[in-house]
Amino acid sequence: MTDQETPLRVAHDARGVVTLTLNDPARFNALGSEMLTALQQALDAVARDETSRVVVLAAEGKAFCAGHNLKDMAAHPDLAWYQQLFAQCSRMMLAIHKLPVPVIARVQGMATAAGCQLVAQCDLAVAADSATFATSGINYGLFCATPSVPLVRNVPAKRAMEMLLTGDFIDAATALEQGLVNRVVSAAELDAEVEKFVVSILQKPRVAVAMGKALVYQQRELGMDAAYQLAGQAMAVNMMDASAQEGARAFVEKRAPAWK
Amino acid sequence: MTDQETPLRVAHDARGVVTLTLNDPARFNALGSEMLTALQQALDAVARDETSRVVVLAAEGKAFCAGHNLKDMAAHPDLAWYQQLFAQCSRMMLAIHKLPVPVIARVQGMATAAGCQLVAQCDLAVAADSATFATSGINYGLFCATPSVPLVRNVPAKRAMEMLLTGDFIDAATALEQGLVNRVVSAAELDAEVEKFVVSILQKPRVAVAMGKALVYQQRELGMDAAYQLAGQAMAVNMMDASAQEGARAFVEKRAPAWK
Amino acid sequence: MTDQETPLRVAHDARGVVTLTLNDPARFNALGSEMLTALQQALDAVARDETSRVVVLAAEGKAFCAGHNLKDMAAHPDLAWYQQLFAQCSRMMLAIHKLPVPVIARVQGMATAAGCQLVAQCDLAVAADSATFATSGINYGLFCATPSVPLVRNVPAKRAMEMLLTGDFIDAATALEQGLVNRVVSAAELDAEVEKFVVSILQKPRVAVAMGKALVYQQRELGMDAAYQLAGQAMAVNMMDASAQEGARAFVEKRAPAWK
Repeated sequence: MTDQETPLRVAHDARGVVTLTLNDPARFNALGSEMLTALQQALDAVARDETSRVVVLAAEGKAFCAGHNLKDMAAHPDLAWYQQLFAQCSRMMLAIHKLPVPVIARVQGMATAAGCQLVAQCDLAVAADSATFATSGINYGLFCATPSVPLVRNVPAKRAMEMLLTGDFIDAATALEQGLVNRVVSAAELDAEVEKFVVSILQKPRVAVAMGKALVYQQRELGMDAAYQLAGQAMAVNMMDASAQEGARAFVEKRAPAWK
Repeated sequence: MTDQETPLRVAHDARGVVTLTLNDPARFNALGSEMLTALQQALDAVARDETSRVVVLAAEGKAFCAGHNLKDMAAHPDLAWYQQLFAQCSRMMLAIHKLPVPVIARVQGMATAAGCQLVAQCDLAVAADSATFATSGINYGLFCATPSVPLVRNVPAKRAMEMLLTGDFIDAATALEQGLVNRVVSAAELDAEVEKFVVSILQKPRVAVAMGKALVYQQRELGMDAAYQLAGQAMAVNMMDASAQEGARAFVEKRAPAWK
Repeated sequence: MTDQETPLRVAHDARGVVTLTLNDPARFNALGSEMLTALQQALDAVARDETSRVVVLAAEGKAFCAGHNLKDMAAHPDLAWYQQLFAQCSRMMLAIHKLPVPVIARVQGMATAAGCQLVAQCDLAVAADSATFATSGINYGLFCATPSVPLVRNVPAKRAMEMLLTGDFIDAATALEQGLVNRVVSAAELDAEVEKFVVSILQKPRVAVAMGKALVYQQRELGMDAAYQLAGQAMAVNMMDASAQEGARAFVEKRAPAWK
């Protein structure tokens, strides 16, 4: 990245697809303060933009994201500074979680520490077969505590603990097997595979997708009875929307729904 | 289904096996109001019947269950009507969850939306290799919110989100890999494979199975300390039952337990 | 075990590796009162010993651990006795869970009931390919309630329920697939494979490992927002430790951290 460049490229297309590209390959797209701020602003803008439909989180260069900037951290041996840093990063991760549109990680390379967390935090993830994943902070004496939050909600318990304690890399095939990503393809097929999810999501009404994403994450934190209570209400409200009414009629009339 | 027929066939055998067969193949065994009422009544009867030991939930025709009846739903664009419908359906799903005997899904064909939910909600599931699974409501603008409740408690997070957002089918092998079903066999072997689970459950004391099923679902909603507290109490009470006393004596005497 | 012997061998090495070896092969290393007391004392000692770094939980003989001693249990048909037994056992399991150092199960043979629970409760597990696993209490009329606590936190829901309801054994390959163990190797390679995890953990600072293990288990019981709140604080505190400061500097200076 030169001074003239931005750490995050933001691209919108006419369909409502927002592609956020981490653009600091020289620093392996580390989540420094500037990158975190740029991501937060971009996610906040997507949240406010009612024409947005789906976010693709991509990265430039060989690495997807190397996590926090250890150089910056070494330079600031200060508790308040670290608290602020992790609070800022967690706020950004929660913005992905709470975004009304799905976020798809497009993982073309190495994803370590908070970079691995980014993949885990996204709703869907597609990886190149050359991508690798590690929660490697422990190798430098810093246990990947915040990355463990989405990790243990994606990956079986002993596998998550193994990654966190050893800091070892897993390859893309293992990440797929463990549930960290949805698809693994060759680097050449990566865009096409991401596009399949994009197109599928674009075919659905925005309102149902937004309600559904929020509901899934809310209900899974509840007991079964409360989860059903919440889900039933959400579904009844969804059904009252014009898009679901049209969908049900289209089903009855054996035609494709005509959504605006 | 003709008017003379019932949407749900209920069969008891001398062993306490109750087979509930969805019997509306012309409507792909959709969970219309009549079907939901019949299922609720049958499950309530099983709950009261102390001779019941295990339920097999099966289906007639090509589909296992296509979920809610979209035709009915299109005909009633009314929030209260939808709230009542999802409340009724959730009550039935929770009845499976809370039933004192295990419920085994016998999935011979397509299970979509609330039909896929039924499979996820059962304690065990055996599928034919031709069975397919989808939470397809989103294809009609209706996010499968209530199906997501048992789905996310069975299947890894990103896989569940993928099914819910895309509405795409997964095949039986994928359902097995993802934890949605316990076994996949050829259609010809389906009954024999279900019977293995049935026979295994029949060999165990009803009281221990009932206590155990309830305990598992209760404790997994708690933190680890509280879960152990509850489980220890349940196990001590279980051990005081005559069947466990006989079981322990049989173990010591190296013979099979003689249970009534 | 003769009267002169101890039910549990405790070995320390100069690196801080504590190996606890269940040493009652004649009783398949059953968790009788004496064994539970010995385990509790050994775990409490590890918790107090600031030179301890990692625990390996191993076993002598053909079986890893056959769970509770059914002979003792048959001899004490008394609710208070059973409550005390399960409370004692759960306290020991929670001691593994709360221990500041990781616990690795070295599973060389059959692990049943509370023996299977031990494997599930450990942070990591390595099994010989001949090892087998079952929550078999139900075969004697005693549902494996307390074993279900760590089991459902390791293994997909329907697989856990299958093990608990049938009491059937799964082999080591299945245990690996289901997430119950991290590695399966030949019996000849078992020690070397356990040693890999040991060496990896020894290379990390004790303080970060202790903080991290506790954090992972605490945050996964919370909702996402609270989990991030807790994890962010833990990570900031971790970063202030001299070991993490040295780790970050070492990263910047492209050298290995020099930890005491």
